[in-house]
Amino acid sequence: MRTVNVGIVGYGTVGNGVAKILLEQSDLIKQKSNCQINLKKVYTRNWDKKFLYPLPDNLKAKNLEELLEDPEIDIMVEVVGGIEFPYRFITQALERGKHIVTANKALLAEKGKNIFQLAQDKNLRIGFEGAVAGGIPVIRALREGLVANSISKVYGILNGTTNYILTSMEKEGKSFKQALNEAQEKGYAEADPTLDINGIDAAHKISILASLSFGGFLDFNQVYVEGIESIDSLDIELGRELGYTLKLLAIAKSHEEEVEVRVNPTFLPSDHPLSKVDGVFNAVMVEGSNVGEVMFYGKGAGSLPTASAVVSDVVSIAKSIQLDMGQEGEITSINWKHKELNLTKVKDFYTRYYIRFTVPDVTGILAKIASVFASYRISIAAVIQKEKVIKLHREDIQNLVPLVILTHTASENSVQQSIKDIVKQKLSIKRPVIIRVEDEEEY
Amino acid sequence: MRTVNVGIVGYGTVGNGVAKILLEQSDLIKQKSNCQINLKKVYTRNWDKKFLYPLPDNLKAKNLEELLEDPEIDIMVEVVGGIEFPYRFITQALERGKHIVTANKALLAEKGKNIFQLAQDKNLRIGFEGAVAGGIPVIRALREGLVANSISKVYGILNGTTNYILTSMEKEGKSFKQALNEAQEKGYAEADPTLDINGIDAAHKISILASLSFGGFLDFNQVYVEGIESIDSLDIELGRELGYTLKLLAIAKSHEEEVEVRVNPTFLPSDHPLSKVDGVFNAVMVEGSNVGEVMFYGKGAGSLPTASAVVSDVVSIAKSIQLDMGQEGEITSINWKHKELNLTKVKDFYTRYYIRFTVPDVTGILAKIASVFASYRISIAAVIQKEKVIKLHREDIQNLVPLVILTHTASENSVQQSIKDIVKQKLSIKRPVIIRVEDEEEY
Repeated sequence: MRTVNVGIVGYGTVGNGVAKILLEQSDLIKQKSNCQINLKKVYTRNWDKKFLYPLPDNLKAKNLEELLEDPEIDIMVEVVGGIEFPYRFITQALERGKHIVTANKALLAEKGKNIFQLAQDKNLRIGFEGAVAGGIPVIRALREGLVANSISKVYGILNGTTNYILTSMEKEGKSFKQALNEAQEKGYAEADPTLDINGIDAAHKISILASLSFGGFLDFNQVYVEGIESIDSLDIELGRELGYTLKLLAIAKSHEEEVEVRVNPTFLPSDHPLSKVDGVFNAVMVEGSNVGEVMFYGKGAGSLPTASAVVSDVVSIAKSIQLDMGQEGEITSINWKHKELNLTKVKDFYTRYYIRFTVPDVTGILAKIASVFASYRISIAAVIQKEKVIKLHREDIQNLVPLVILTHTASENSVQQSIKDIVKQKLSIKRPVIIRVEDEEEY
Repeated sequence: MRTVNVGIVGYGTVGNGVAKILLEQSDLIKQKSNCQINLKKVYTRNWDKKFLYPLPDNLKAKNLEELLEDPEIDIMVEVVGGIEFPYRFITQALERGKHIVTANKALLAEKGKNIFQLAQDKNLRIGFEGAVAGGIPVIRALREGLVANSISKVYGILNGTTNYILTSMEKEGKSFKQALNEAQEKGYAEADPTLDINGIDAAHKISILASLSFGGFLDFNQVYVEGIESIDSLDIELGRELGYTLKLLAIAKSHEEEVEVRVNPTFLPSDHPLSKVDGVFNAVMVEGSNVGEVMFYGKGAGSLPTASAVVSDVVSIAKSIQLDMGQEGEITSINWKHKELNLTKVKDFYTRYYIRFTVPDVTGILAKIASVFASYRISIAAVIQKEKVIKLHREDIQNLVPLVILTHTASENSVQQSIKDIVKQKLSIKRPVIIRVEDEEEY
């Protein structure tokens, strides 16, 4: 069997892990898969930095062309991050007949359609196990293990930074700011954590899972994304009283002609398996027509976990190359329905809602709020009204109390309309807090 | 692409599910995988019964030869159960060049070596995703997704019946008998639940996972198996006080020259992800050198979940057939180290122990028991001695109390020796209860 040559572009956290595995564990990989894989060249802009896993000089490329123009390099591993630069050279690499393995969720979510189209034209493979949920082999599960299922829903905790923050807010009563600072100190949040905190990272990942589960591409700009920046620990506490745990959930559901894809802070029943996923761990739940619910759990980031996923794609593609195959080696193509997925509009979301109003501590307010909901045919499942909440929140010194309404399943549109009415009638002094609830009822 | 023809042998719970998926969802499968799969014939001994999913007459074979002798049948699905009969016809089918998909864990654990050897000689594939953990694609994860990892440990809850029983003993305080009866009433335990209850079913499954994880076959008769028949709810309660949850765990660990494979009731820290797997669900935890801990969770049995796994193998093999491949289509071969695995002997197990003695309620007993342990250099981590346990257990009317010792990591041999001494000295009136503990310390 011929040796398969690999080039790596980008030498950060994941790149170091991929090189380490390819250089140190090629014997193990050969023993298991009968593939001889050789790391031929690595390119990064600046070789003068200190690296976690320093490379011998003969592997260091001075420019990208050394890799692109080397006909011996069969597979290009892209672990550089960003969008424009990797998009350009991945296109060039595909044009030159090289297979691609990437852990770049932003790139695939935003430019995937073009990349996968070009790869199909060239009969080349794109491996992207590392782009979603790090080391957890969920892409492979969807493409192969669950091939005999029609997927109705795939959802999960796809960002470890935000899950760490929410866990420490919940378990240690920290504020969002305190929890974020702690996460940064421990290295679980980057210096600029924007894309984690605002939900975009999780949205990139769920878009990829949605494409694979439902068989088509979608317009990432239309995906509904809400982050955890403004989560108040008061809501975590009040939610717990209702039996719920707060998670930043990435959700994709199939409706008849549409696909609902969104990322938002979500209350889940506290005994739901995802409620028990704490700290930096990720987990993905898949609902298949035959298999029922299956969950995949593990480390969603980090050098070696992500590299483990990247190398699994390298091995799978190396096997294809040895057998002289292209895309035929894939069980399920990412765009298997060969169509664009229509996204459900926000106003058409249909779910349960937790709504916290801040109301003056006088009688009659609940009745008035309830009658507004009734006028929109929104049915109320539970109410928490606290007589005194002095310990819970500072605003109580003004004699304001939180009033929480848990609704049955309702449309986003009617909920937003009723809240507009309630605010107009000055029933809630502050802008109400709205948190969506994933609970069995809606099935 | 040519149509791939499938025959099914055995038409019980799983067989019905496989036929239903192949007949009703062949369009979905074709759309995803580009494979045209045709269910050609099904054989079962008695067609006069009532079936969950009745078949048209043209699919019903009168004898096995109709399938074996049909050159058009490419893949034989074995879902008949038992060992001798399926072993015979699988051998015959392989001889005739047919690929095999089986959900028969007993067969693979006890006769796998011969079957896989013959398949290798003939360059044919054996799919067995359905043999372990039903619909959860853990076999594929080990073969493909985690290919870049050296596996140090694979363990989990592999039998839904016993997990249902233990969960209801724990959460509802039921006795083993009550819980078993309830499981039978609800259809979660078979009329003859012996192979579930005594741990053999879980042992079959962990043997298969061990072979795949560590790359060789093992002698199933040497695997240590202990069931849950004699679990007393008192121990579940006392374990909880120590922060542990009782599960029937199937465990395979790699040591330098040996592999430790065992099934036994096990105390796990209550915050361990497997402790939270309740009822009939299964879960498998894998520790990989790069990925860290990954867990797979879902329904471990049932018609459609298991059929989902069986059909995923059918599709994967159909793909190979269309590409004119044999075993090359597999990323990791089950026997990738090409050797026999040496099993660790029971006396060499090295773990933590929960030991419950039944002692007279007089002073000085704990000191004497502790000194026996000390003489064997077994270090004690925690002790529970109850002054009065009248509500907990009937034997207290004789003035006997339970004394629980939780040890640090110790060898099975020294623990057994010390217990022998303690019993000989009549310090424990009844035979002590020994339950192994999986807790971080031992790494």
